[in-house]
Amino acid sequence: MKKSATRPPVARKRALTLGIGVLAAAVLLPSAAVAGAGVALSQNGGAARHTGDQTADVRAAIKNSTAKNVIFLLGDGMGDSEITVARNYAYGAAGKLPGLDALPLTGSYTTYSLYKDGATKGKPDYVTDSAASGTGWTTGTKSYDGAISVDIDGTPQDTLTEIAKANGLRTGDVSTAEIQDATPAVQVAHVKDRGCYGPDTAACGTDALAAGGLGSISEQLLNTRPDVTLGGGRTSFLQTAKAGQYAGESLFDQASARGYQVVQDGASLAAVKTADQKKPLLGLFTPGNFPTRYAPTTATVGGADAAPVTCTANPDRLSSDLSLSSMTNKAISLLNKPKNGKGFFLQVEGASIDKQDHAANACGQIGETLDFDEAVQAALAFAKKDGNTLVIATADHAHSSQIVDSTPPATLSSALLTADGTTMKVAYGTAAAGASQQHTGTQVRIAAYGPGAANVVGLSDQTDTFFTMTRSLRLDRDTDRFSRSARATANDVRPRPSEKITVTGTRFAGDRQVTATAGSADLGTFDVIDGTVTVTYTAPAKTGDVAVTLHGVQSDASAVVRLRVTK
Amino acid sequence: MKKSATRPPVARKRALTLGIGVLAAAVLLPSAAVAGAGVALSQNGGAARHTGDQTADVRAAIKNSTAKNVIFLLGDGMGDSEITVARNYAYGAAGKLPGLDALPLTGSYTTYSLYKDGATKGKPDYVTDSAASGTGWTTGTKSYDGAISVDIDGTPQDTLTEIAKANGLRTGDVSTAEIQDATPAVQVAHVKDRGCYGPDTAACGTDALAAGGLGSISEQLLNTRPDVTLGGGRTSFLQTAKAGQYAGESLFDQASARGYQVVQDGASLAAVKTADQKKPLLGLFTPGNFPTRYAPTTATVGGADAAPVTCTANPDRLSSDLSLSSMTNKAISLLNKPKNGKGFFLQVEGASIDKQDHAANACGQIGETLDFDEAVQAALAFAKKDGNTLVIATADHAHSSQIVDSTPPATLSSALLTADGTTMKVAYGTAAAGASQQHTGTQVRIAAYGPGAANVVGLSDQTDTFFTMTRSLRLDRDTDRFSRSARATANDVRPRPSEKITVTGTRFAGDRQVTATAGSADLGTFDVIDGTVTVTYTAPAKTGDVAVTLHGVQSDASAVVRLRVTK
Repeated sequence: MKKSATRPPVARKRALTLGIGVLAAAVLLPSAAVAGAGVALSQNGGAARHTGDQTADVRAAIKNSTAKNVIFLLGDGMGDSEITVARNYAYGAAGKLPGLDALPLTGSYTTYSLYKDGATKGKPDYVTDSAASGTGWTTGTKSYDGAISVDIDGTPQDTLTEIAKANGLRTGDVSTAEIQDATPAVQVAHVKDRGCYGPDTAACGTDALAAGGLGSISEQLLNTRPDVTLGGGRTSFLQTAKAGQYAGESLFDQASARGYQVVQDGASLAAVKTADQKKPLLGLFTPGNFPTRYAPTTATVGGADAAPVTCTANPDRLSSDLSLSSMTNKAISLLNKPKNGKGFFLQVEGASIDKQDHAANACGQIGETLDFDEAVQAALAFAKKDGNTLVIATADHAHSSQIVDSTPPATLSSALLTADGTTMKVAYGTAAAGASQQHTGTQVRIAAYGPGAANVVGLSDQTDTFFTMTRSLRLDRDTDRFSRSARATANDVRPRPSEKITVTGTRFAGDRQVTATAGSADLGTFDVIDGTVTVTYTAPAKTGDVAVTLHGVQSDASAVVRLRVTK
Repeated sequence: MKKSATRPPVARKRALTLGIGVLAAAVLLPSAAVAGAGVALSQNGGAARHTGDQTADVRAAIKNSTAKNVIFLLGDGMGDSEITVARNYAYGAAGKLPGLDALPLTGSYTTYSLYKDGATKGKPDYVTDSAASGTGWTTGTKSYDGAISVDIDGTPQDTLTEIAKANGLRTGDVSTAEIQDATPAVQVAHVKDRGCYGPDTAACGTDALAAGGLGSISEQLLNTRPDVTLGGGRTSFLQTAKAGQYAGESLFDQASARGYQVVQDGASLAAVKTADQKKPLLGLFTPGNFPTRYAPTTATVGGADAAPVTCTANPDRLSSDLSLSSMTNKAISLLNKPKNGKGFFLQVEGASIDKQDHAANACGQIGETLDFDEAVQAALAFAKKDGNTLVIATADHAHSSQIVDSTPPATLSSALLTADGTTMKVAYGTAAAGASQQHTGTQVRIAAYGPGAANVVGLSDQTDTFFTMTRSLRLDRDTDRFSRSARATANDVRPRPSEKITVTGTRFAGDRQVTATAGSADLGTFDVIDGTVTVTYTAPAKTGDVAVTLHGVQSDASAVVRLRVTK
């Protein structure tokens, strides 16, 4: 053979040997030390996130699939790109979001919605909104953009909160948005148009109480009666009911009349020590959505060519006792009753990742993702201590923001100075400057911890998440069943004429409200509290027999107590 | 209490009852039937991908972490958005990509690269190219854009193919790109500039053989000698070596001289029955990259407002025996020797998902993703039968394409008529019309099957994948070790003057080439075949002692045989 030049320079061999030595050293270091500290990212193994085979860890993370509690955390619009943007900015590319990145079991799910009209009725609409998404994981039914827990025909679908309540669990609904916004709304209401916030909203159409519907989102929230509701959205509660038994009263007054503890600031929230069906907690801390964590950056066409900026605090941000993680901790502390056999279902939404992405506001989006990550940390800390809680964190859809290398010429972008000390360019290319950036249709990450968490691994659909949660909690989805043995009793079945008596309905857990009639007289609608309803009734002035019938509004079950009015 | 209007219309209760009934029916159906067939997507549970708790399935998918074989499949530029685009188009939103979506264990990994110069040297560059990415999973070392298995200082890093070979495994490198393209190149070469394709390439700089370097990617490929190499890139092999023992000869001639079986069409490939270190297979089927599966769509500004199109076959596509799945099957059949104790490492790249995304060509991108998915199916089918093979499928980085609801005003887009019979709008917003769309920096999906597959679950980095694969294959990464006991023998240690003798080096598995010297005379460079090197040598004309030294080019190990030339 001829003379070769394939012999490498001596320097190469030395370097290879050194490389191996460095790797050996890196492998000996604990995981945290590998990523970022001590070992340079450029060394062999220096950027690895794991230090050895994690098969046993993953296997250990798979728990049997029955959980006492489920905490479902939803980063609105938090696609993989939004997660990466926040990680790069706050912790560096090799860093870890302490909440989201600590969830051990991971997969993707599809988020498409369905069309409801015309030739494409029932067919996929590839880009969903938050309403259809929420309906998916909350009811297991795929629906159309704008649907709040109704199917494509507008028919209400039982929600996780409703089902959990019927099964005797405590429930909570927490958001940084106004509580009528799609994600919190899907747990507590059934309306055909997500815009149906309050009794004054024209969007309610046939859902309005005055039109014989179930009422606006705010009014239905009061009917659904989660143990804990925390968020923004005061404005709609200042409106007055236009029909029904609270016609003419503000929703705030109605809430108080129905037993709610209403709080509107952090100090009042801190003072609340219990929240249950007798005294549910309704915390509404802002007129609309919460202010963001970071002040906005101004994305401009060509903006990523400017000097990179650091995000700054938003002076309008609420006090830290109203951060999403604080609210999450508060909700958990109120819902978790270790001595009671039943657990809880809690939904927590970081709402404004989406809203800031719509606004092409990179800092806004990052701050909200970090806030959400802190809520995930709170949930995870509880779940690890509790040992019997499934935590799921995911998004309802992906969004516009993309990390790019060079500044796109025609669309909005910003440059950020990250924790790495380098520049990250974030671009928004789905809408014109000034217009709302769009949701995108890619599958998104779903991650989980605890019993049942393995169900997020691989590819699932948003609607699978409903079944994962109901299955883990062993919920009977046939909520009607819980009122099937309903019965009615009276403190006196032989009252004197015009005597005030108390009729009690029990085993009505499949209902949230019960109507009462005495003969042909309508006695009104009453809230079911822990399966029980109490009706105060004045016996007829004349003697004779009268049947008092309690009728479950949701279950259609009836229970009758027969009274004999006697002198 | 006052009269209420919260009683739902009777229709609602009927519908809820129906919903539960339908769900029960859906749950009884097998999984395939749920998604798409029979049960409408709009029914409760109709869009769910799973029919029950999958905890046991996920647990069963976690195998012990030692594999005999690894098949690593890389969809270039195949972020979650590209996967969803292809699924929606070909199988519908509720459908399944039979390869990618069948991989049971899933996670995300980070893809960032590093800067190599100036003040940001060693710091993250948030948007990687394929070269830095490939260097990551192939060597475990994070590097800079353009790096082909060298670190940020330009120092070569051992590749998986090199390490697997040293450990006695068979190796394969398959791509639909020209074989010099970054992804296939990282397995077989070490150059500082990914453009260094052949001896004529100016980009080679100090890596050129003539400059004392290791040579161009094509020349180094011949040195690395995978058992099977299949792809495009003929053009560079028509070039002639400018230095070294093959100076003046074309690389095709050099390949033949070094024992390669060179094939250039499907029929010749089909005729190949064995490929090993004695007769490695080099199949180069196109001058450059392979033609795509589908003819291009023309994305235009506002294009997604046009009538949706169906993708059409590309008349220039290669015959089906040269599809990526056919090449994958062929490579597996040549590399898999069940009776030999050692296994194989095979890399398969679907290269043009990226290239078509750069071109804002939705149909091109979809066809390449489907082609890649078929290759994943092929790998998975083998792995399931084999039971001892780790299959990993992932991307090197995400890309521009986004599924949007409405047509972005300023950027390129296309409308496609999907398998669902609805319209999918795909937008490309990271570059101007006519310019190359950009890679994006989001974390991407990694999915796996088989022993060690659990290591992809959760969040990892691209470089972790190198360790996952070397660990699963139990590879000793200290390749020098494999030549430490090298020895040299001669067929006659007391030759007569000018006698032709054969010097044999054994246990040189840590090397791919060995140089030989006799005293001060350079005898040339020789390929190591399965740890053995054979040097033909003419003894000196004069009597006396002479030492023939074999020196491992890669390991630096030496072995000497002492000859006494005797009359």
